[in-house]
Amino acid sequence: MIDCDVHNGWDSARVLLPYLDRSFRDYLDRGELPGGRDSFPHGHRAWLHPEGYMRYDTLPPSGGAPATDYAYMCEQLLDRYDLDYAILLGEEGMEVSTLANPYYASALARAHNDWVLDTWAPLDDRLRISITVAPQDPEGAAAEIRRVGGHPSVSQVVVTSGSQRPYGDPFFHPMWEAASEMRLPIAAHLGGQGGVNANPTGTGPPTFYWETHAMLCETGMGHLASVLAHGVFERYPHTRLVLVECGVAWLPAVLWRLDADYTALRKETPWLKRLPSEYAHEFVRVTTQPLERPRNPDALWTALDDIGGRDMLMFASDYPHWDFDDPFTTRFPAEWRDAVLDGNARALYRLPAARPREEAAGAGA
Amino acid sequence: MIDCDVHNGWDSARVLLPYLDRSFRDYLDRGELPGGRDSFPHGHRAWLHPEGYMRYDTLPPSGGAPATDYAYMCEQLLDRYDLDYAILLGEEGMEVSTLANPYYASALARAHNDWVLDTWAPLDDRLRISITVAPQDPEGAAAEIRRVGGHPSVSQVVVTSGSQRPYGDPFFHPMWEAASEMRLPIAAHLGGQGGVNANPTGTGPPTFYWETHAMLCETGMGHLASVLAHGVFERYPHTRLVLVECGVAWLPAVLWRLDADYTALRKETPWLKRLPSEYAHEFVRVTTQPLERPRNPDALWTALDDIGGRDMLMFASDYPHWDFDDPFTTRFPAEWRDAVLDGNARALYRLPAARPREEAAGAGA
Repeated sequence: MIDCDVHNGWDSARVLLPYLDRSFRDYLDRGELPGGRDSFPHGHRAWLHPEGYMRYDTLPPSGGAPATDYAYMCEQLLDRYDLDYAILLGEEGMEVSTLANPYYASALARAHNDWVLDTWAPLDDRLRISITVAPQDPEGAAAEIRRVGGHPSVSQVVVTSGSQRPYGDPFFHPMWEAASEMRLPIAAHLGGQGGVNANPTGTGPPTFYWETHAMLCETGMGHLASVLAHGVFERYPHTRLVLVECGVAWLPAVLWRLDADYTALRKETPWLKRLPSEYAHEFVRVTTQPLERPRNPDALWTALDDIGGRDMLMFASDYPHWDFDDPFTTRFPAEWRDAVLDGNARALYRLPAARPREEAAGAGA
Repeated sequence: MIDCDVHNGWDSARVLLPYLDRSFRDYLDRGELPGGRDSFPHGHRAWLHPEGYMRYDTLPPSGGAPATDYAYMCEQLLDRYDLDYAILLGEEGMEVSTLANPYYASALARAHNDWVLDTWAPLDDRLRISITVAPQDPEGAAAEIRRVGGHPSVSQVVVTSGSQRPYGDPFFHPMWEAASEMRLPIAAHLGGQGGVNANPTGTGPPTFYWETHAMLCETGMGHLASVLAHGVFERYPHTRLVLVECGVAWLPAVLWRLDADYTALRKETPWLKRLPSEYAHEFVRVTTQPLERPRNPDALWTALDDIGGRDMLMFASDYPHWDFDDPFTTRFPAEWRDAVLDGNARALYRLPAARPREEAAGAGA
């Protein structure tokens, strides 16, 4: 007899290390991996960070993964930068969007939310919670928003920017309706590539991690255009869209294009009453990390100013990830600082007015 | 007997007109259609322009389709604007990229090229020809570039910006190799959505024509990133990438992101010797139509100046399409005009130096 399908195993993929060229040995030895037995189930992306996407210095001295130790997070982030509030977005939880099974995805999202409200919310009034939902299950997402969206620590809903379709599509309207009813923004956070979700560019699959990471801004653009064109904020005026980690420099270019194309062909979307850029200015907020760095800073701020960017940008660090923006060294124009570092987020998330205090030494200077 | 699959027909889809609401009656009556018996075979896009994408005033008085009558093209474009040269890109020919059968696609491209060289090239020395290839058949594309790329009227190769994968991918290298050998740029022209090609955004299928049209800039971004990351210009230094009709305002934002991500993770692409923006400045050119229109023009030009945009932009009108940019009314900064309206294209396409002449009244003023 001949058996023509037998699988030979290994205990660890590390057996391949001696057989790899040095540059790829480095990927396999130190890079991002889909995870073992205790990892969170999600469709892992095909673009693996060659060193893993954590800042090595965020590993807590007490052991465990980055950003799992509250005291160390205080030391490295909340106290160090004297933050009034930190919007927590979890880590892998939002990646439920990549799963084919929408019921399992919603079940994992519910478990994630109960865990984060049980264990993180009570720790510190400065921590504000984002609840995760599975957008591929819009009715389940709506039910979850209504179930936990009223918890006093909850400030927003989060989904990945990777998706099967753009979020303005009627398929997702139950999710927007529930968010509006609960007066919560929905944040589309960079991620969720892989699994059942679309490729992250308009040209099919890119190749390298750095190439892909730079191009992930395209996911933010696509959702922005879709949500504006479908008139989500005409239908559901008490929610907002927050684009997290998609960058900000592209925003003027895309809004100029959307305004021009809408103006020419507005008969396609008769439910809109204002220009796309006008809806964006009122209903869309964009976090700053990773902030683009032109040779001439005016090249960024002059463009952003043209679309009222001072009212739309909100500071974010992305702690504990590799491309962290440090509040002490990230530069904003002096007349933008109060709005971007504080005021815009405080208004969006309806956080109490800041107490007068000493000027934090160097913060955002 | 019961036959459970019988098809009832109509002579024309116009039978549906009385049954449609007014706004969609307009789409069906006046909008873009996939075409009848004599149309060119391609996988038609799912995003149909609600009025068709031609300027109505370009229909020749002699009958026929827009831009089919040479004398009328002279009257409306070449003579009216006193053009030294016009780079012809054909019309539907490049859409062969959407076909599943790469051999048929290449055969249609060859026929298209022979037709355009037979009928258009001899008409006027001002007309420069772009030969079409089927990128999904890279060896066939390379053979076609070598077959007709040496014709004295040929100035570049054109493919659609819609594609199955980004054009830096090794799959496409035979096409780049042949273009470099023949000293021809490859233009990726907006289009080629539909058929076997990728959805035009990084979030799955958008919905409306105007939304999609604004977002088609994402196809240009994806190819730009891919071609730079794969080091196409290190391997094939005698070709260039021209992005046609993808807009220009996003270019600084994307290059800033690419530079930052490359700098952080350049070990992934050790064949690169310079920053992505430095390769782009030397090897990538971008046509200006549809030129974005900020409220404050400086918001556009300051950003473009940061990446050396004056050396990269080339004027284009998109005649005879609906969103034509008129050379008399499109505004460029005074110190950019010579390069953008003339010098950059003349250098790229190796066209003879301009003869001294009277200042064309008003052109680009």
